[in-house]
Amino acid sequence: MKTAAIFGASGYTGAETVRLLLGHPEIEIGALSANRRADEAYGDVFANFSGQSLPTTQKIEDIDLTGIDVVFSCLPHSTGQAAIATALDHVDTVIDVSADFRLSDPAEFEAVYGAPHSQPALLEDRVYGLTEFARSDLLGARLVACPGCFPTCSLLALLPGVEASAFTDSLIIIDAKTGVTGAGRKATLGLHFSEVSDGAHAYGIGNHRHAPEMEQELRLFGHTSAISFTPHLVPMNRGMIATCYVELTEDWSVERVRQLYAERYSADPFVTIMPDGEVPQTRHVRGSNEARIGIFADRVPGRAIIVSVIDNLTKGSSGQAVQNYNLTQGWTETLGLGATGLFP
Amino acid sequence: MKTAAIFGASGYTGAETVRLLLGHPEIEIGALSANRRADEAYGDVFANFSGQSLPTTQKIEDIDLTGIDVVFSCLPHSTGQAAIATALDHVDTVIDVSADFRLSDPAEFEAVYGAPHSQPALLEDRVYGLTEFARSDLLGARLVACPGCFPTCSLLALLPGVEASAFTDSLIIIDAKTGVTGAGRKATLGLHFSEVSDGAHAYGIGNHRHAPEMEQELRLFGHTSAISFTPHLVPMNRGMIATCYVELTEDWSVERVRQLYAERYSADPFVTIMPDGEVPQTRHVRGSNEARIGIFADRVPGRAIIVSVIDNLTKGSSGQAVQNYNLTQGWTETLGLGATGLFP
Amino acid sequence: MKTAAIFGASGYTGAETVRLLLGHPEIEIGALSANRRADEAYGDVFANFSGQSLPTTQKIEDIDLTGIDVVFSCLPHSTGQAAIATALDHVDTVIDVSADFRLSDPAEFEAVYGAPHSQPALLEDRVYGLTEFARSDLLGARLVACPGCFPTCSLLALLPGVEASAFTDSLIIIDAKTGVTGAGRKATLGLHFSEVSDGAHAYGIGNHRHAPEMEQELRLFGHTSAISFTPHLVPMNRGMIATCYVELTEDWSVERVRQLYAERYSADPFVTIMPDGEVPQTRHVRGSNEARIGIFADRVPGRAIIVSVIDNLTKGSSGQAVQNYNLTQGWTETLGLGATGLFP
Amino acid sequence: MKTAAIFGASGYTGAETVRLLLGHPEIEIGALSANRRADEAYGDVFANFSGQSLPTTQKIEDIDLTGIDVVFSCLPHSTGQAAIATALDHVDTVIDVSADFRLSDPAEFEAVYGAPHSQPALLEDRVYGLTEFARSDLLGARLVACPGCFPTCSLLALLPGVEASAFTDSLIIIDAKTGVTGAGRKATLGLHFSEVSDGAHAYGIGNHRHAPEMEQELRLFGHTSAISFTPHLVPMNRGMIATCYVELTEDWSVERVRQLYAERYSADPFVTIMPDGEVPQTRHVRGSNEARIGIFADRVPGRAIIVSVIDNLTKGSSGQAVQNYNLTQGWTETLGLGATGLFP
Repeated sequence: MKTAAIFGASGYTGAETVRLLLGHPEIEIGALSANRRADEAYGDVFANFSGQSLPTTQKIEDIDLTGIDVVFSCLPHSTGQAAIATALDHVDTVIDVSADFRLSDPAEFEAVYGAPHSQPALLEDRVYGLTEFARSDLLGARLVACPGCFPTCSLLALLPGVEASAFTDSLIIIDAKTGVTGAGRKATLGLHFSEVSDGAHAYGIGNHRHAPEMEQELRLFGHTSAISFTPHLVPMNRGMIATCYVELTEDWSVERVRQLYAERYSADPFVTIMPDGEVPQTRHVRGSNEARIGIFADRVPGRAIIVSVIDNLTKGSSGQAVQNYNLTQGWTETLGLGATGLFP
Repeated sequence: MKTAAIFGASGYTGAETVRLLLGHPEIEIGALSANRRADEAYGDVFANFSGQSLPTTQKIEDIDLTGIDVVFSCLPHSTGQAAIATALDHVDTVIDVSADFRLSDPAEFEAVYGAPHSQPALLEDRVYGLTEFARSDLLGARLVACPGCFPTCSLLALLPGVEASAFTDSLIIIDAKTGVTGAGRKATLGLHFSEVSDGAHAYGIGNHRHAPEMEQELRLFGHTSAISFTPHLVPMNRGMIATCYVELTEDWSVERVRQLYAERYSADPFVTIMPDGEVPQTRHVRGSNEARIGIFADRVPGRAIIVSVIDNLTKGSSGQAVQNYNLTQGWTETLGLGATGLFP
Repeated sequence: MKTAAIFGASGYTGAETVRLLLGHPEIEIGALSANRRADEAYGDVFANFSGQSLPTTQKIEDIDLTGIDVVFSCLPHSTGQAAIATALDHVDTVIDVSADFRLSDPAEFEAVYGAPHSQPALLEDRVYGLTEFARSDLLGARLVACPGCFPTCSLLALLPGVEASAFTDSLIIIDAKTGVTGAGRKATLGLHFSEVSDGAHAYGIGNHRHAPEMEQELRLFGHTSAISFTPHLVPMNRGMIATCYVELTEDWSVERVRQLYAERYSADPFVTIMPDGEVPQTRHVRGSNEARIGIFADRVPGRAIIVSVIDNLTKGSSGQAVQNYNLTQGWTETLGLGATGLFP
Repeated sequence: MKTAAIFGASGYTGAETVRLLLGHPEIEIGALSANRRADEAYGDVFANFSGQSLPTTQKIEDIDLTGIDVVFSCLPHSTGQAAIATALDHVDTVIDVSADFRLSDPAEFEAVYGAPHSQPALLEDRVYGLTEFARSDLLGARLVACPGCFPTCSLLALLPGVEASAFTDSLIIIDAKTGVTGAGRKATLGLHFSEVSDGAHAYGIGNHRHAPEMEQELRLFGHTSAISFTPHLVPMNRGMIATCYVELTEDWSVERVRQLYAERYSADPFVTIMPDGEVPQTRHVRGSNEARIGIFADRVPGRAIIVSVIDNLTKGSSGQAVQNYNLTQGWTETLGLGATGLFP
């Protein structure tokens, strides 16, 4: 058994991590941090956990890391760098769910997040944990940066084709839709039920922070141009769609792309390539770690539309974090992640 | 005062037409058809109208068109062509909300809708009623084909730029999101609350019937290439977004496009160009006839993202129908359409 | 034409008042107060109004009441008493949508709202504006206290029977359900979309502030016992149900009660008694000023269940406020309130 | 390992049973019936299961019961009596989720469900499986009738007090609210997203079929009077509230009732008595088998309000079914049911 501390347990990704770890056969929860809600029973922070035997929340600096094997850090970006550096002196592994270690270049981090990175040395050895493309690096990794929810959803849809040079460099447009939990738990007018329900809207048009992260990874696989990325807020709790528009290179057809993806992901327990004609829906992966990807011919000859869906809190965040930790330990990838989507 | 008959009053566009006409100062409702729900009080078909003084529903063939000035036809596509032809022998004006007279070429109608058009002669003089681009043709028109909801939302976002050659011919991608009323009132498993709520999905990928309609109109304004169009179903009642990706031609900037649009629509009471940086939201036009359009710079140099929102039942259907009828009569365009969006 | 100022225009009841007054033929809007959001275009406070010609918001103390005929005060309880007293020195009429003047006894106000009433003298002549039971007092009234949403919904369901001694004194239980707008626009965790959607719960059990208000009015009509009242929060924007359990006195049957109610409200344009067997639904009165009341036999012999539905923001708040103002002026009661419910 | 067949696997309770059994360590799924959707991959019937290794659906008469140990019957009421009788000749245990074996008196079944019971002999030995009150009967039971969702939610709230004579016989009013999955998966207009979302309404007022079932059980514990029961449909997928109004007998206080309940349920892993002042919410038990009960003082002296929440598909149906089967086998009650509620 390993013992985990969760940093930032008062947010949605923290709670999702707790939920998943409670069902994990090899991990027990040893500490929970929640700076603004310290010294509370966790069931008071998230009422679904009341009755569960869980540690009282603490300020992060009050957590004794003795006996902790792994930290899952679910803090808001830019707030956990020092704490993670400290933790690495005491624990074997840190799985970071935040954005802090995703961008490999500290200068780009500063440009995108508006403040210098305080631990640039740690960026060098961190593993970018898009699991299906990072397995060989994950075993034994000490610091894993879990991708953002949009990058996870989009890159799973794009990387196999980019890697195979199936797509031209001139067109990657990602039109994404996310549930409201993706915006976090902070009480703001924009997340008030009556301001969100029964309507939809785009946001962060042309300047969302997940776009540079996606471009970083796409570059590694050979796509060097800028991409378009437009997220939309949809009145649902969980769920994310990336609708990706690409142009096929010569010799590539939609069918061949679908076959490529089916092969590429054939050994991946959490990625499903939909049969021809079947459209993935977010609600069918609610609460599960599964990504579903459908590949379709566009009306425009030579183009394909790749639609990827995940639960933003699970595969898009805490589920992938657990999946990554399993692999750092050499465990079966699916430990603690076997649940079917909760539908309806 | 003019007297209106509404064909197909048991569907959502029929009900929305009734709602708007009840507030119209120059129109009274003389007849309501509802073939499967004939001989019912209209308040039994749509309970929000109970208590209103409205005609009992009839089968369409039982309606006496004597004294009727205008028919608003809200029938499912392919079911109203003969009835409309007959109506034109008795009434001054038919405003068709269905898809039957949108495509000007009967061969294309057959290709898209799977059955030959029974009234091809009527296609010649019908006016395609995207109001802001049809005013000069609407005065005195006898048969107006109201655009589909997706074409209305998308074409308002695209036509000024296409008309001004501001966009290259190589890229128009429309990623759309619609509320559930757009799918009609038929009881199917796919529209069951528990199959729709708390989730989202794409549909009709690559082959939605509104794409050829949009291409027909874009061609008229100079865009000759095929377009991409992907609709998504979002768990809300009303509302539609068209997120349009375009490539600017030389000499055009996002600012210049925004200025072009502002000028093009400056006299249009129902089209609002958002100030720089403001994103339109569907919920703010709920129940209103307003379209809101925001124009944004993409991350990809030389591209723009144009986001258009409407209420699919109002500007996307029955509201535009009333707006069009107002113009056929030479009335003020806004008659009966003045309501502010119902938010929240 | 009368000119209105709206105090507290940045909340939902303020916005609903603005929406209704924009469609009122005899009222124009002269000023809008919004202390925390002063000096903003109203379309920035509520985006559905952008494009409307409306005054810039002001701090309440900066509003010049010269030329204002009526103030609609939509302030949070306990914050507007002094402003209303001042306003009464300058304007003909104040319609208060808040709780401040509902309880006629200042001692009870203090007990319920936790602070002394600063204007007890004004309580003496204020009219409690449950319109259907206050018409004779409304003509010429200068200060009208509009009932709370729950009291409006519940009292319409109960008062005719209480007045006729159709119900015993031993049982009035009101189990109520409300949409989220009833909780106001303040950004709190409890109103975050993800904390409210796809779930329901009771609140204020046994101690909601609207219960003493209901008892005050019930006493006036002859019911002297305490009542039970339990509100529930339901994931919808607008809408309220009061499900009322009563025990019939001898000689009274459900049918006779239904007939009594039909007669009592026969001249009331905004109250509908449902035919036997038809259950009222909140969605059918969305955005309208209508109350719908259904009367049913209970399984327990001698008891009736009376179900009342309204839109909490319209008949439950701003719509009734406009209705009341119409009557203070001797106008037709329905002015500006004619809209059918927006369904779906 | 035991092998289960699920009858009626194309409905929501069938799917929920499959979901729970997939996580059960001692049960494997051997057969799935779905008469109207026979010969389909189960992932085509419920897309969340695509990718899972599950039997193809069959017509019920085509299922070979050889090797099946237990049938979970999730058929619509009145359709499974014969199939269950047949199954009992082949399998050890039948857990019936339908209404068919809940009422012990066949005459009452016929009165309530409108058709005679075809297997009255089976009613004699069936166990009414409200688990917390049936444990001693469940061990070895061959036919368990799982209570309806409303009875489960309400009886858990009422029986300890009734059993202790803490409530008078003159008042039990249950005002209930349910999510839409409770109405089943049939495609009807009344369950269309746009007819259900953003609104609420009561139904079955005074005559819901679950009321006689509740009275049957209340009588067994000493409450002999009729009860009031009014369900409401709320726009959420899962979740149920029973708000119960009772009158305390002499010597009983709310605090004493709370203590009684805490003691009565102290050994029950799936029933939580909320601390004083905390209100249970449906969303916190989403997908879990937990019932949460809060006990509150009413404003009316001598009365209490007991609020109970469950997930109607889990504790209200398939979860309790699995819990009951665990107990028939002498297993730990919580096997396969350990998941925390999925929130948000």
